[in-house]
Amino acid sequence: MDMAGPGHDAAAVPPDPTAETIEADEGTGAAVDELIEKIAGLEDRWLRSVAELDNVRKRLARDIERARGDERVRLLREWLPVVDNLDLALRHAGADPGAMVEGVRAVRDQAVALLARLGHPRHDETGVPFDPAAHEAVGTRADPGVPPGTVVEVVRPGYGDPGAQLRPAAVIVSTSPD
Amino acid sequence: MDMAGPGHDAAAVPPDPTAETIEADEGTGAAVDELIEKIAGLEDRWLRSVAELDNVRKRLARDIERARGDERVRLLREWLPVVDNLDLALRHAGADPGAMVEGVRAVRDQAVALLARLGHPRHDETGVPFDPAAHEAVGTRADPGVPPGTVVEVVRPGYGDPGAQLRPAAVIVSTSPD
Repeated sequence: MDMAGPGHDAAAVPPDPTAETIEADEGTGAAVDELIEKIAGLEDRWLRSVAELDNVRKRLARDIERARGDERVRLLREWLPVVDNLDLALRHAGADPGAMVEGVRAVRDQAVALLARLGHPRHDETGVPFDPAAHEAVGTRADPGVPPGTVVEVVRPGYGDPGAQLRPAAVIVSTSPD
Repeated sequence: MDMAGPGHDAAAVPPDPTAETIEADEGTGAAVDELIEKIAGLEDRWLRSVAELDNVRKRLARDIERARGDERVRLLREWLPVVDNLDLALRHAGADPGAMVEGVRAVRDQAVALLARLGHPRHDETGVPFDPAAHEAVGTRADPGVPPGTVVEVVRPGYGDPGAQLRPAAVIVSTSPD
């Protein structure tokens, strides 16, 4: 399908023969025939590459839709073990509530590990300076123990580093005690 | 950029003038010049559409990669509330184990509802005939109460209907009692 490829009957392309036929004063009829043949060949090539361009453009939309669907299925399959383990934790809920807490914690850790593996590690650090690229300030608190502008509580963890962020961490930030 | 468009200096394209110049016995020099000009124009168009084709192909690969990444981020953001609610259930774990079971069940239901909304409803029906498109048989059991080939237990639910299936349901199938 690659009509621009070097192997594809490229003989009619180089401009040199054209330059030669300009000089041909005798045998003009043959030269004209040659030129007309050349024009037919070029027209054919041009029309074919325009048609191919049209096909590729149409395919673009379909290919993108398919890539999106494939990615969705691939990703959702990765989440199924998390759901399975929630089912499992619930099935054993009656027996030992303490064991259930451990089971649910393991499921949460599994989900967080999956997010990290997919490129979006969890961020819930306190004691770090407020960073507008990583944090969303949802409140402030006077705290004499830390410098002003320090994250003193994470209300909701963030996932992913700036550039590949699913969401920033929602945090409480220290103010200077007045 | 659409060089095949009707507005893009299409005057040199129609094949009729070529047919006329074949007939031109006098003024052959002028006819040859015209043909050479035509060839230059066609070569230019052809080369430009080949270059455009190359660009579109390269863009295709980039666009697909970007669509995949966008879909991944969009989907993972949908899962974050599930993870948030697991965090919440664990935070309240100490207080009331019974309430925790309810909380975890709600999270599980939330995850199952999300999968359904994304086009992959949960399947864990028993009492239905075994269907190789929807079920994976992982065992058999003699059961005089139902016709042979009936799903008598779902070991692991399936998600999605055939055609948009994340996985089939793993089931135990009844055999005729001998």
